[in-house]
Amino acid sequence: MNSTSAQDSTAAPSTQGHGCKVALLGFGTVGSSVAKILCEHSVSDIRLTHILNRNVARKKVDWLPSSVQWTENIDDILSSDADIVVEVMGGLQPTEDWIRRVLSSGKSVVTANKQLIARCGPELIILAAQRNQQIHYGASVAGGVPVISGLQSGLAGDELFKICGILNGTCNYILSQMESKGVAFADALREAQKLGFAEADPTEDIDGLDARAKLTILTRVGLHCAVEPETIAVQSISRIEAIDFEYAGQLGCTIRQISWAEISSAGLKTQPQAPQTQAERSSLLAAVGPALVALSSPLARVEGSQNLVVTTGVYGGETVFGGHGAGGHPTAVAVVSDILAIAHSKQAGTSKSAQDLKAPALNTHRVSADYTAKHYLRFFVRDQPGIIACLATILSSCAINIDAVLQKPGCPKTRLPFLITLEECKASLVERALRQVNVLEFMVEPCLHLPIL
Amino acid sequence: MNSTSAQDSTAAPSTQGHGCKVALLGFGTVGSSVAKILCEHSVSDIRLTHILNRNVARKKVDWLPSSVQWTENIDDILSSDADIVVEVMGGLQPTEDWIRRVLSSGKSVVTANKQLIARCGPELIILAAQRNQQIHYGASVAGGVPVISGLQSGLAGDELFKICGILNGTCNYILSQMESKGVAFADALREAQKLGFAEADPTEDIDGLDARAKLTILTRVGLHCAVEPETIAVQSISRIEAIDFEYAGQLGCTIRQISWAEISSAGLKTQPQAPQTQAERSSLLAAVGPALVALSSPLARVEGSQNLVVTTGVYGGETVFGGHGAGGHPTAVAVVSDILAIAHSKQAGTSKSAQDLKAPALNTHRVSADYTAKHYLRFFVRDQPGIIACLATILSSCAINIDAVLQKPGCPKTRLPFLITLEECKASLVERALRQVNVLEFMVEPCLHLPIL
Repeated sequence: MNSTSAQDSTAAPSTQGHGCKVALLGFGTVGSSVAKILCEHSVSDIRLTHILNRNVARKKVDWLPSSVQWTENIDDILSSDADIVVEVMGGLQPTEDWIRRVLSSGKSVVTANKQLIARCGPELIILAAQRNQQIHYGASVAGGVPVISGLQSGLAGDELFKICGILNGTCNYILSQMESKGVAFADALREAQKLGFAEADPTEDIDGLDARAKLTILTRVGLHCAVEPETIAVQSISRIEAIDFEYAGQLGCTIRQISWAEISSAGLKTQPQAPQTQAERSSLLAAVGPALVALSSPLARVEGSQNLVVTTGVYGGETVFGGHGAGGHPTAVAVVSDILAIAHSKQAGTSKSAQDLKAPALNTHRVSADYTAKHYLRFFVRDQPGIIACLATILSSCAINIDAVLQKPGCPKTRLPFLITLEECKASLVERALRQVNVLEFMVEPCLHLPIL
Repeated sequence: MNSTSAQDSTAAPSTQGHGCKVALLGFGTVGSSVAKILCEHSVSDIRLTHILNRNVARKKVDWLPSSVQWTENIDDILSSDADIVVEVMGGLQPTEDWIRRVLSSGKSVVTANKQLIARCGPELIILAAQRNQQIHYGASVAGGVPVISGLQSGLAGDELFKICGILNGTCNYILSQMESKGVAFADALREAQKLGFAEADPTEDIDGLDARAKLTILTRVGLHCAVEPETIAVQSISRIEAIDFEYAGQLGCTIRQISWAEISSAGLKTQPQAPQTQAERSSLLAAVGPALVALSSPLARVEGSQNLVVTTGVYGGETVFGGHGAGGHPTAVAVVSDILAIAHSKQAGTSKSAQDLKAPALNTHRVSADYTAKHYLRFFVRDQPGIIACLATILSSCAINIDAVLQKPGCPKTRLPFLITLEECKASLVERALRQVNVLEFMVEPCLHLPIL
């Protein structure tokens, strides 16, 4: 295996320099994978010099060079000669303070921290620029799937107006287990916890808060919208039951936790539709929650803990990015790619990354979850005559058209499930009707309302 | 819609400069789409200043600013103050000479020319670097699918060892039409030509030369292998018949034109397998041609003229990129993204792109098409007793194990089709056996031999 000189001349600066020194905050699953890649893969002139973790004695490994300095004290990192500090500790505090201090001390930052970037990414980007440093966060969304860099570079020439994806591997694992094995939500969750696909406290994943942070970041980077995570509506997947997969199957669909954001007043359409005037583009539809997706759609075929992002642009149409959304090694690939991007722009003699320069100013939009779509309404009722007539009257009075009614035979009369699908209309219209429906005396529990994408 | 100042400070240089001037060589489908995006989308401080085309009078359009200068003479471009020259004329000559002269005159180049980059990309990259310029070619592979930039940035931190994909929309359109409509190859080709999905002379597409050029480029960028297009084996899709889709369907497969490259001595495996030692990695398996892919695979679900690329890395596993592989607008998105990358690195004050710096030196490998896989052998024979026994004897004498024999009933005895599938073995072993088989007197035509991926 011989090395040709095909590109040696362009690579010159990387061999002249003293190399780029990297400090690692956090030596858990992702941190140790980052260290492993930097050591094994011997990436051009990048050197791991410091590792910070609690209880360092317990963490030390024998496969790292003895030159690596271990510490429990952030001041050791701040006063070191590290050029890039990689934050893979997670959490909001002390992480945010530490990242601010790292940037202020004239070092660049690579982080995988989605909650932190979702909450204060724009501020940290400004702080970094003020100090002639960079902050990269490619690993904060979809782990090893290179969607952030894809939005920042490969699709920079397009005008994206929609991003839709499966951004949480835990929910996808649970829902795809429920689909394939017909098990109940609680059983699928327990199984996921046993296998390490779900946390002991699964709230962040199940209730959509994890995916919401990722969608916030994608919306800023891809749609150039200034959005705060709290303004994005979330719906938990915890109310999905095995019967919902039966009904979804009868509609040629399955159920997935979908995160979507779209600049449009036209609402959520199956057919991508380019916005036509500035006025029409004044609102941002954004939501995270369970939705019906056609079995023929790429979203329905995402298995286990995989992630998938579909972007839609005015010029390029739909583009798909898929891969491992979590796990030490895939996430570490994204971290190391960011380290390389910063190292090479430092070697090229600029403190600005092309990504910083490229990023257009963010636009402010009204955030809404009032999508227009077909709707899936699943009821549990105490059976009695006249239920359908009663529901049909309420829906009709709200100017909502019923598309189909499905009732699985052989179910208990005290908790009888049935399904109504609605023709395309606004979600707010349906919610208004459901406020009347949910108080009816035959309703065993509130209606489950999902969009059909 | 208000603009926040979230990233204004980082974007400062792009508003200081006089902007980046772009000249366009070629005003066909892609060229006019590039001009359209640059005008409509008003990308940050990029200005289209020159357009070169034959017979300019016939080409002029009214939607471009009157300041744009039209010319038929390359010297006008060379002597202009354009910073970036976009080449979307296609062809090898005079294109190559012109690009060399453009780079030598101190301008950077963006090209969508896959044949040119496949043949002399490394040389042009060196020439660009010598002149402190850049050459970008993101549009040369898979149109609007951002796979080149994905390999160069988002996956830079991984060590990729396999790239597999559908890189030719014409073949994919023809094969998916044959699959869904059961039509003959010639009919599907005629239909594709009528709809503009295939050229009048479809050889480049059908015989795999187009996909081979793209695979050459992906292999260099993603696997860092110095490879010449001529060393990659190609097989035409023209011998695929409707009956092959019937047989493939019985095996749970369909047929697609697949391009793949893999660093390994272990051969073509369905299961990704990381190479383990340098010795094992000394050969590059690379081929373009029709192959059986499982219906459950993402490759089987690529519709019409879409493209899909699946990369496999030691650390990140499989990553998927999909989207519109051709067409004016999607290809133009890739071109404009490249223009932006160069413009921003010029604004950042560096002549080196991060991509140039990042690119590791290329390694030289022995190129082989001797993959290890299951095999699909389709025969047309004049029916007579003892054919299967005869074939089984030859295969057995070559130490090849038969997996299954399938024969569709009710076919003409003078051109009787049947199928033998083989257990996993080397392609060269099968080819050796087929040299004995193809001369047997009952063979109506040579056996069609495809890998089962």
